[in-house]
Amino acid sequence: DDLVDHSDEELWATEPYRDPRLIVKTAKPFNAEIPPEYQIAHFDTPNELFYVRQHMPVPELDAGAHRVRVVLEDTGHSREFSLQQLRSLPAASVRAALMCAGNRRSEMHKVKPVKGIDWAGGAISNAVWSGVYLRDVLLTCGVDPDDTEGKHVILTGADIDATGQNFSTSIPLRLALDASARVLLATHMNGEPLPPDHGRPLRVIVPGAPAVRSVKWLECITISSEESSSHWHKKDYRAFNPSTTWESADFERAPPVYSLPVTSAICAPRHGDTVTAAGEGATPRTYTSQHALVLCTLTTCAGYAYSGGGARVVRVDVSADGGRSWTEARLQQDAAPHREHYAWTLWTVRLPVPAHATQAELWVKATDGNLNTQPETFEHIWNIRGILSNAYHRVTVRLQH
Amino acid sequence: DDLVDHSDEELWATEPYRDPRLIVKTAKPFNAEIPPEYQIAHFDTPNELFYVRQHMPVPELDAGAHRVRVVLEDTGHSREFSLQQLRSLPAASVRAALMCAGNRRSEMHKVKPVKGIDWAGGAISNAVWSGVYLRDVLLTCGVDPDDTEGKHVILTGADIDATGQNFSTSIPLRLALDASARVLLATHMNGEPLPPDHGRPLRVIVPGAPAVRSVKWLECITISSEESSSHWHKKDYRAFNPSTTWESADFERAPPVYSLPVTSAICAPRHGDTVTAAGEGATPRTYTSQHALVLCTLTTCAGYAYSGGGARVVRVDVSADGGRSWTEARLQQDAAPHREHYAWTLWTVRLPVPAHATQAELWVKATDGNLNTQPETFEHIWNIRGILSNAYHRVTVRLQH
Ligand SMILES: [Mo]
Ligand SMILES: [Mo]
Repeated sequence: DDLVDHSDEELWATEPYRDPRLIVKTAKPFNAEIPPEYQIAHFDTPNELFYVRQHMPVPELDAGAHRVRVVLEDTGHSREFSLQQLRSLPAASVRAALMCAGNRRSEMHKVKPVKGIDWAGGAISNAVWSGVYLRDVLLTCGVDPDDTEGKHVILTGADIDATGQNFSTSIPLRLALDASARVLLATHMNGEPLPPDHGRPLRVIVPGAPAVRSVKWLECITISSEESSSHWHKKDYRAFNPSTTWESADFERAPPVYSLPVTSAICAPRHGDTVTAAGEGATPRTYTSQHALVLCTLTTCAGYAYSGGGARVVRVDVSADGGRSWTEARLQQDAAPHREHYAWTLWTVRLPVPAHATQAELWVKATDGNLNTQPETFEHIWNIRGILSNAYHRVTVRLQH
Repeated sequence: DDLVDHSDEELWATEPYRDPRLIVKTAKPFNAEIPPEYQIAHFDTPNELFYVRQHMPVPELDAGAHRVRVVLEDTGHSREFSLQQLRSLPAASVRAALMCAGNRRSEMHKVKPVKGIDWAGGAISNAVWSGVYLRDVLLTCGVDPDDTEGKHVILTGADIDATGQNFSTSIPLRLALDASARVLLATHMNGEPLPPDHGRPLRVIVPGAPAVRSVKWLECITISSEESSSHWHKKDYRAFNPSTTWESADFERAPPVYSLPVTSAICAPRHGDTVTAAGEGATPRTYTSQHALVLCTLTTCAGYAYSGGGARVVRVDVSADGGRSWTEARLQQDAAPHREHYAWTLWTVRLPVPAHATQAELWVKATDGNLNTQPETFEHIWNIRGILSNAYHRVTVRLQH
């Protein structure tokens, strides 16, 4: 949907090198998933394996010459910062997953077609971002923290579409100024300067929000009484119910998505894999299920879980018998408390599988610190844009005993 | 389960007058629902109709003589406040629903028996609470807002069980000090002094948390490196997956529930009602459903929605055909922003029903500002204690055309 002039090869001549392990969904613009086995291999995703979501060609910016302009629309004041000037503010860092609002869209797509990149579960990765708090930048510029009602922070990047429009979106000023929201202007990712694909030399990080709000190649920050007027902001990333069609959808009335619901996915084993169920030494156990089960060790049963808005994942339940019995997974987590927890959670579990089964249906669901959990299926959360696709993740594997 | 000596009639001699419209679930201790028609009749529930959840007999306290003691366990410091001394702190008020963690338990109970009062949807009501912020009280007492790690605020009421134990529970100190959490020491409810059933003369209000944390008849506030050791805190209000039994439940390891997931309920019409579907003047419309539908006005189709942890409800979807088509309801809400939104949401909807149907299956589901929504059924959220029972609410009505 992005207006990119594909006839002009020159636009793409300076695209950065990409790790061949990424799973390319579209080449121009470049959109690629991290393979599931690499999601669970590292708590903080190596920069070169971090999933990539571009709307346009990647701008080449010079860190030394780069400036970000802060504009206060109501007073007309504006101020420019070099990266070095930003560094005079207190250093800040936050461990946060970024997830595309369309992550896991391919599963919703199977219910009924939706519009958008057909992401599997690889449009989420985790990193430690560092730079300065947007809050500190705004306060330095004289933004009044007690006058946030109806105000927005418009974030504009250097990436440009074929009509000359810079990428832009906005977040509520209240969110930008909320210390616990920890909105960052980041220059570094896992201790390295941001790679070109992730916004070199400066990007916003809005922890707990759809990644689209974390604007890359940041050039301008405008405090406004209006949301961003860009089509990326006005005509996308809004939530509708399953009965809303492209004809009936009222994008003006539907609130923009600024957070993400609780989700989870199984990264290993993968759908269709043959798994050796190691029953030796394991004692038969009876579960609350009607079935007698044998404790087996699936070589690796692991994945991720995540919840937006600062919610911490508190429990991950996995089933090997289509939901008849559930086993709690072991969690690997950042120490941040609930309400300020922005990283993903990795989980592993030794799963009991029915003794004589030749296949197992693995399900996963996560529960967060607000005790929200995932919907069972995609049917009633289906929406035209295929976003917020967070029903149980289900994988069928063949069993070898 | 509460240890109350039912043989001693004297304990109950001073119970307050209760409005006969309340639906009594247990008389001693007194537990009663607000009827659904009164939930939707007022945005702020009249005090006499507010649902009541008691663990023990209601203490009779003298407002003039009442003192609340604040104890800092690590320094040994303590300080007492009369209500008049509390009033020297800045006045504060918050509009917040209180909901029992077991609200709607009766629906989960139908899947498989659970332990607890068999609440329908009437264990939630809404009010404006006023008093002072607990945060201000704690800061006045010298509590260090930068030293919250692993600390808890133990809240103890004047209500006593048969063993002499005062009711007590705790919340994390971080939550108590979080300005956006708006934890209150309330003396007033909808502008009136608290009624005896709601904690006269002083109760805690922890907005967005299960009502059990909003301790009534508050006598003591202890800053401690431990959670409350009471059985109400240690052996209840913890979440488990459906496979966890009373035998396997590890209450020490399961985190206490300090927030509530998104929920909703249909208050009118009620299950089994006969509804006149007024098709006159309505144009037949085709929905995304395969069924041709006629727009009908159900006399009243209304209810409530709520989400804990400060999440604002952003959409309520209602179906009259068992989920094949969904109509967005009109919302009545408090103006508080998402992340600090603690009131319930009332909703109404004119619902299209199948033209020739003799009955309709009404479903409701809500979506909150984190884009979390409800699970479709109770099967996979079932838990031994029957709490957090937030699957779609379903009501079958007979139709008269
Ligand atoms: Mo996205
Ligand atoms: Mo409760």
